[in-house]
Amino acid sequence: MRAFYPLVLASQVAVVLVLILAGYWTGHYLGGFAWDGSAKEFNLHPLLMILGLVFFYGDAILMFRIFRKENKTVVKVIHMLMQSIAIICGIIALKAVFRFHNKAGIPNMYTLHSWVGLPVFVLFCLQYIGGFVSFFFPKLNETRRAAVLPYHKFFGVTLLGLVCVTALTGINNKLFFAMPGGEGKDKYSSLPSQAYVGNFLGLAIVIYAVFVGFLVTFDEYKREQEAPNPEKLPLTTAEMKQFQTMDPADPSAGEEAK
Amino acid sequence: MRAFYPLVLASQVAVVLVLILAGYWTGHYLGGFAWDGSAKEFNLHPLLMILGLVFFYGDAILMFRIFRKENKTVVKVIHMLMQSIAIICGIIALKAVFRFHNKAGIPNMYTLHSWVGLPVFVLFCLQYIGGFVSFFFPKLNETRRAAVLPYHKFFGVTLLGLVCVTALTGINNKLFFAMPGGEGKDKYSSLPSQAYVGNFLGLAIVIYAVFVGFLVTFDEYKREQEAPNPEKLPLTTAEMKQFQTMDPADPSAGEEAK
Repeated sequence: MRAFYPLVLASQVAVVLVLILAGYWTGHYLGGFAWDGSAKEFNLHPLLMILGLVFFYGDAILMFRIFRKENKTVVKVIHMLMQSIAIICGIIALKAVFRFHNKAGIPNMYTLHSWVGLPVFVLFCLQYIGGFVSFFFPKLNETRRAAVLPYHKFFGVTLLGLVCVTALTGINNKLFFAMPGGEGKDKYSSLPSQAYVGNFLGLAIVIYAVFVGFLVTFDEYKREQEAPNPEKLPLTTAEMKQFQTMDPADPSAGEEAK
Repeated sequence: MRAFYPLVLASQVAVVLVLILAGYWTGHYLGGFAWDGSAKEFNLHPLLMILGLVFFYGDAILMFRIFRKENKTVVKVIHMLMQSIAIICGIIALKAVFRFHNKAGIPNMYTLHSWVGLPVFVLFCLQYIGGFVSFFFPKLNETRRAAVLPYHKFFGVTLLGLVCVTALTGINNKLFFAMPGGEGKDKYSSLPSQAYVGNFLGLAIVIYAVFVGFLVTFDEYKREQEAPNPEKLPLTTAEMKQFQTMDPADPSAGEEAK
């Protein structure tokens, strides 16, 4: 448990920085927000994607660590609600960029950002549905939940990594569009203040994701097992049978799925 | 062990596709290679970075799974040699881009790609040095090796993810530079053939990294334990002491570090 709270604090400092930089960039440098198909509507795209798919998504995963000593059902509900907010942010953000493109006559889906981003969002929705059905309602039986859990965890963390890839390519695109080349002193390559804001935003997203990834995958920080004491169980109870067939390499598998 | 070989095969198909697309893009669309400070020298940057930091790095990690039944010392040497090639590719690739920028009067280190990429390469070198010193020469004692291993693994996989982030922002940059906007039919947004090659290259890198990540982090595919049978060991041997102090949540920690 060394360094757990400092690492959680560091992750939250990073994500607060992410949100401030995202708000400052889109609200100030890119010109603010509207819902009229203009570039101001586009600005909702990076802001809401970062709010939903970086902050709410990342912190929804972290809930299982931050509250790893609390009632697990409560944490699951919080996790699910935060992922729901993430999806809603993502849908509005997608709507905003397609409306902007269509009104401005800009083709959709030509950039690498869009080629990676749309599949990532679809996979995120599938992961949400899979998680909901498996762990919430109608909820699989205990054995199947335990079997599904490692996949849910792997794809959860992997998708957070893919969110980073998508976010950084998107920020990259917009920095080039917003600060085109040429001779002006506001071009990207002369590093005006917007370049610093955008570059630090990208870096902060990466740093946040690395902290979240570490906290949720490192064995040391896992929820403490509430395993029934096998010495005290009759050999015929369901708990004991599960314990007997458990993979010795991963004694937590049976526990964490509850 | 379900699906192990199909997944390894899929990862290798993905990375062969990565190498073909990288070679075709830089060799054909971007104009080929030279060592004269020109744009042809720049082309060595994406090609060697992808060869070294995607292919050799990713496959070096995979060696521990592909040969997980072979002698571990041999696999460690192969892993270390492949990472050495990765570093050499990276150094030449960095030299190429700085030489190109300097000769063409293009500022260095202004893009998000460079802000993420240079720290990632420095971290990769530190990880290499740390791995070499801990597991190869002078090599830590068994307890310390076991303590260092989970960090080496976490940062290894995380850096592969960061390599993806860096690679995709870099491909993104070059696609915009190589197919600038305007009215021509060769602009990026009209999806000429180069856009498909570049976008598929980015996607293939992401898919490869996800396969590698899955194969090396999923418990099911881990090297089989060669644990000494504790029933047969006297309580005073070093092996038994290590076994007694082992974290029950991760019985593999003591084994994998050998």
